[in-house]
Amino acid sequence: MIDINRQIEQINWHREPYGLYEPIEYTLRSGGKRLRPQLALLGSQLFGGKDEEVLPAALALEVFHNFTLLHDDVMDKAMIRRGRPTVHVRWNENTAILSGDQMMIEAYRLLSRLPDDKLPHVLRLFNEMATGICEGQQYDMEFETREDVTIDEYMRMIRLKTAVLPAYALRIGAYLAGANEVQQQTLYDYGISVGLAFQIQDDLLDVYGDPATFGKAIGGDILCGKKTFMLLTAYEKADADTRTAMMAALNNQDMPPEDKIVAVTCIYNRLCVRNDAEKVIGTFTEKALQCLNHLPDNDAATHLKNLANSLANRTL
Amino acid sequence: MIDINRQIEQINWHREPYGLYEPIEYTLRSGGKRLRPQLALLGSQLFGGKDEEVLPAALALEVFHNFTLLHDDVMDKAMIRRGRPTVHVRWNENTAILSGDQMMIEAYRLLSRLPDDKLPHVLRLFNEMATGICEGQQYDMEFETREDVTIDEYMRMIRLKTAVLPAYALRIGAYLAGANEVQQQTLYDYGISVGLAFQIQDDLLDVYGDPATFGKAIGGDILCGKKTFMLLTAYEKADADTRTAMMAALNNQDMPPEDKIVAVTCIYNRLCVRNDAEKVIGTFTEKALQCLNHLPDNDAATHLKNLANSLANRTL
Repeated sequence: MIDINRQIEQINWHREPYGLYEPIEYTLRSGGKRLRPQLALLGSQLFGGKDEEVLPAALALEVFHNFTLLHDDVMDKAMIRRGRPTVHVRWNENTAILSGDQMMIEAYRLLSRLPDDKLPHVLRLFNEMATGICEGQQYDMEFETREDVTIDEYMRMIRLKTAVLPAYALRIGAYLAGANEVQQQTLYDYGISVGLAFQIQDDLLDVYGDPATFGKAIGGDILCGKKTFMLLTAYEKADADTRTAMMAALNNQDMPPEDKIVAVTCIYNRLCVRNDAEKVIGTFTEKALQCLNHLPDNDAATHLKNLANSLANRTL
Repeated sequence: MIDINRQIEQINWHREPYGLYEPIEYTLRSGGKRLRPQLALLGSQLFGGKDEEVLPAALALEVFHNFTLLHDDVMDKAMIRRGRPTVHVRWNENTAILSGDQMMIEAYRLLSRLPDDKLPHVLRLFNEMATGICEGQQYDMEFETREDVTIDEYMRMIRLKTAVLPAYALRIGAYLAGANEVQQQTLYDYGISVGLAFQIQDDLLDVYGDPATFGKAIGGDILCGKKTFMLLTAYEKADADTRTAMMAALNNQDMPPEDKIVAVTCIYNRLCVRNDAEKVIGTFTEKALQCLNHLPDNDAATHLKNLANSLANRTL
């Protein structure tokens, strides 16, 4: 299997104007699991495709993903990403906006290395994916100023913001390897379920994760009042008094961050929200595994099985 | 000839999440000359192409252009665009960033409506153009904090930021109509010359333009200390005392905006910078017209001739 990390690290960003490309290099060399390009390769391998033929799309997906992180960090005013200062902190906001724009263009440039007979369809899939992610981010931002977000709305949001990317990565890989429509759709559904499980796991880790392995500061979602699966579930389960206490803590500007995180986490503990999250993660993991039953069984399939199962026990 | 304005106004943006698409509709329905899509159509008509076959690319170019204006306005903190509040003023900065991102994706989506046999090459041209524009914007921002920008550096910047878009619009139109490489390149060169003349004209109008027809506030470039052709030429021509006086006015935080504009404009008048600008505009207009001598002579050619000539006398 191609070493995606090496492929990405090898892209030469030493170009003028340096002020535009250095933040792109900084972002793309800050590590990350490279999960999405791996999924594109696995989607292809599942149907006997060659890695080299998927590589342009795999790299485009990873660059696009990192572009969304860069701009999201500006919008969310996030200070840390993968244990390092975000681009708008290390440089400034204008640099983060413009280098992000160029990153999106670089993603399309990488995509355009696909052979002419495959490029048009992949481009159309890629655009659908990209639009879904932007719509998801929009819902996510709108939720911040709303007190009446339902768990259904939340699920629609993370489906767009987080799940469509892995799903399209798999679908594009499968298409490039010659899989038929039904196979592509089944693998896409697997990707959506894995993506949803992954995001809820991420919400859980923001509260119960190990700072050393999580890469982000614990409690970040709580501090910016993000409507996560944890918060929405707690809000739904809480009695009137607990709900008031929770809102009071979340909206209290004077409360020191640490205390706020502790206060909200205590409520989560009391309401066993962690248990609910783990249950839902289990359900989506199960759905994902079922999709794989209708697809070829080979090494790639084993990887995808393991990936689904691993989500149920990411480092806590 | 297809009514580009109508085509753009007809795109339906009534989609959820409204918070993402309304700013896009607001931006695309705020008028503008639709010059770039017109150029794509003219580039095709020059070689006997059909308008309908260029339309997806023409619309993509206009949407991409408006995306760059949207994000540039955030970075430049511009308050007014085409006589209306900019998106980050009317909504907020996050909306301007995200709706801008989605606009870029919409441009690629429109482009992807091209037939499969044409799309790959046009996509690659489009990506080169998009990268050039981002690089140009980066140089433009870097110039703001530099006191040693040369006119050559300035010309390279506006070539990227302003001239490549019309040049690629023409080239893409010509390619879609079946023009050969040399013809495409000659038309591209015409576009670069016209684009450079257009930008220097724009710099001139920021000082000497008619607010009613200019759409932007007069003196905006002076107030944000933008390194324009006017300023760089004045700086080059000025003696030590004038230079000091000019810098003093530009860097004076306490000076009322109106006074600052008057002070700098007086210096421009004294140094006859307007005359220099008009000379350079004339030279590029001439270069552009010469390119047309090597290309087919028909109605489209006449339009392109008139366009080049009109630049030499845009409403002042």
